[in-house]
Amino acid sequence: MVSNFIVADVGGTHIRAACFPTDSHIPSNLKRITTKGPGTPHERLINLIASIVPKGEEIAAITIASPGPLDPFEGIIFDAPNIPGWKDLPLKKLIQDQFKVPVAIGNDANLAALGEWRFGVGVGHRHLIYITVSTGIGGGVIIDNQMLLGAHGLAAELGHITVIPDGPLCGCGMRGHLEAVSSGPAIVRWIEQELDKGMFSSLTTKRPLEAIDVANAARKGDELAQAALARAATHLGIAIAGYLHVFNPSLVIIGGGVSQSGDIFFNPLRKAVSEHVLSSKYLEGLTLTPSTLGDEVGLMGALALAQTLDLPTP
Amino acid sequence: MVSNFIVADVGGTHIRAACFPTDSHIPSNLKRITTKGPGTPHERLINLIASIVPKGEEIAAITIASPGPLDPFEGIIFDAPNIPGWKDLPLKKLIQDQFKVPVAIGNDANLAALGEWRFGVGVGHRHLIYITVSTGIGGGVIIDNQMLLGAHGLAAELGHITVIPDGPLCGCGMRGHLEAVSSGPAIVRWIEQELDKGMFSSLTTKRPLEAIDVANAARKGDELAQAALARAATHLGIAIAGYLHVFNPSLVIIGGGVSQSGDIFFNPLRKAVSEHVLSSKYLEGLTLTPSTLGDEVGLMGALALAQTLDLPTP
Repeated sequence: MVSNFIVADVGGTHIRAACFPTDSHIPSNLKRITTKGPGTPHERLINLIASIVPKGEEIAAITIASPGPLDPFEGIIFDAPNIPGWKDLPLKKLIQDQFKVPVAIGNDANLAALGEWRFGVGVGHRHLIYITVSTGIGGGVIIDNQMLLGAHGLAAELGHITVIPDGPLCGCGMRGHLEAVSSGPAIVRWIEQELDKGMFSSLTTKRPLEAIDVANAARKGDELAQAALARAATHLGIAIAGYLHVFNPSLVIIGGGVSQSGDIFFNPLRKAVSEHVLSSKYLEGLTLTPSTLGDEVGLMGALALAQTLDLPTP
Repeated sequence: MVSNFIVADVGGTHIRAACFPTDSHIPSNLKRITTKGPGTPHERLINLIASIVPKGEEIAAITIASPGPLDPFEGIIFDAPNIPGWKDLPLKKLIQDQFKVPVAIGNDANLAALGEWRFGVGVGHRHLIYITVSTGIGGGVIIDNQMLLGAHGLAAELGHITVIPDGPLCGCGMRGHLEAVSSGPAIVRWIEQELDKGMFSSLTTKRPLEAIDVANAARKGDELAQAALARAATHLGIAIAGYLHVFNPSLVIIGGGVSQSGDIFFNPLRKAVSEHVLSSKYLEGLTLTPSTLGDEVGLMGALALAQTLDLPTP
């Protein structure tokens, strides 16, 4: 009988799930639903998983990528603010009770790093860091081919180091974190402040703004929008230079919506990184690149996690 | 025949060496010489090692803790500015050619972390970070019982993240690094600036100052000296909060001279750490403590390194 890994990626907007035969990384089935709708998000997740299993086939394991701080060992979501009801949610147990198969969960940015390492641009790299820049800034780190989890599974929160003491308020409640300076909402907040000061921009008449508006305006030559992206990229670059000193990786992957802005973001980013490393040795053999797995990175990370599980032999 | 590990710790002021029977962590011999004197530092090191080997006994391996960026895989010291001539020095090869036994070298702060993990306050911790605060700020990280080295062995430079954008000049040439704000010389530089502004202190008449003078004055109640230590400790604490998010360790060890200042340094340090973590979960089960191995930490780290070497069976 064919045995399958069922993998899912739960986000604030969509839940994706896919079915992979255990010997393949080509999905035999792939579905996407909205996170909000009839039923709770975890009921919707369970129904989606149930709907994706091919009739008469087995499930070897289910793995799930989820936002928010979570305990990957016990499988508990501590707090995923964008997903109603996901606070101290014992997701692993809920899914396991339903499907009676091994279940593992992981932080979505951690699993994105694992996915890129196993299937994407990270193949062949023993040491890499992944930073996703969108509504928040998340991270994942591979050290010596292992995912960095830390003592309680809360490691690799690369968006939550202080880059400007007493700087802007971060989503986590602290001040001046990288996320508060370089995330999508932080870029919008900065440009809104500049517009309030009377700075000229093609965006003046388009408020309220979203990060994508800033990226589009920057591409069309809007100088204020370009300055907003450059500012965010520069602070990200300074932080990445620090992470090069801390992790000395051979690969830095930038994921998330903001990373899709192209050269207008990556040029100042690369400049800041190379200007802020303490020795050019940290740049030798280093690649800095956008994510290659795109929207599927969470699913591919969950698949990589499934493949590393120590499963009972059938 | 008794077989021994010879371990050495090379610093800007002293070279220490010790001889340990391979089945013991009690040294059978221990010597300390000055780094500068007749001969080059590496000749002095070779003579010290030769003098410490018990007559008629074997050397199983030699391991050496050295400052500076270095390549632990190839055994090359890139740049140890405090040790004359140690620039692109193939130390491993030089020692190996002399003694014809396996040789390994490691960054002193990396090995201090390993020493504390194997023999000191870190025993039983799978995830710890070690930060030494003295003339510079160095670091070592143990992740899942493994030393963090990175792709080229240059990782764990925990003193070289930017904590104040465009802040004071760091020893590495960059600006605003933790080392430029919280090291011994940074503390002295800050207080000298305050004295130049006419601030009152018992230190006014004692210039030029050293970090130990500031610590002593702070202990005797000098408010400016206390403010200088508190400022350094607060920035260190904010950086450590970031490292808790990055590594989620169960132990943070502070070594180096500045860590000997006691509560006057550790109180503001603990306060800053707990005020800057994004969730109290990072503090659960966390210990923050001074180093316990003191001046011997480099030697004990080198011993721990020797014990992990894959040696040919005799």
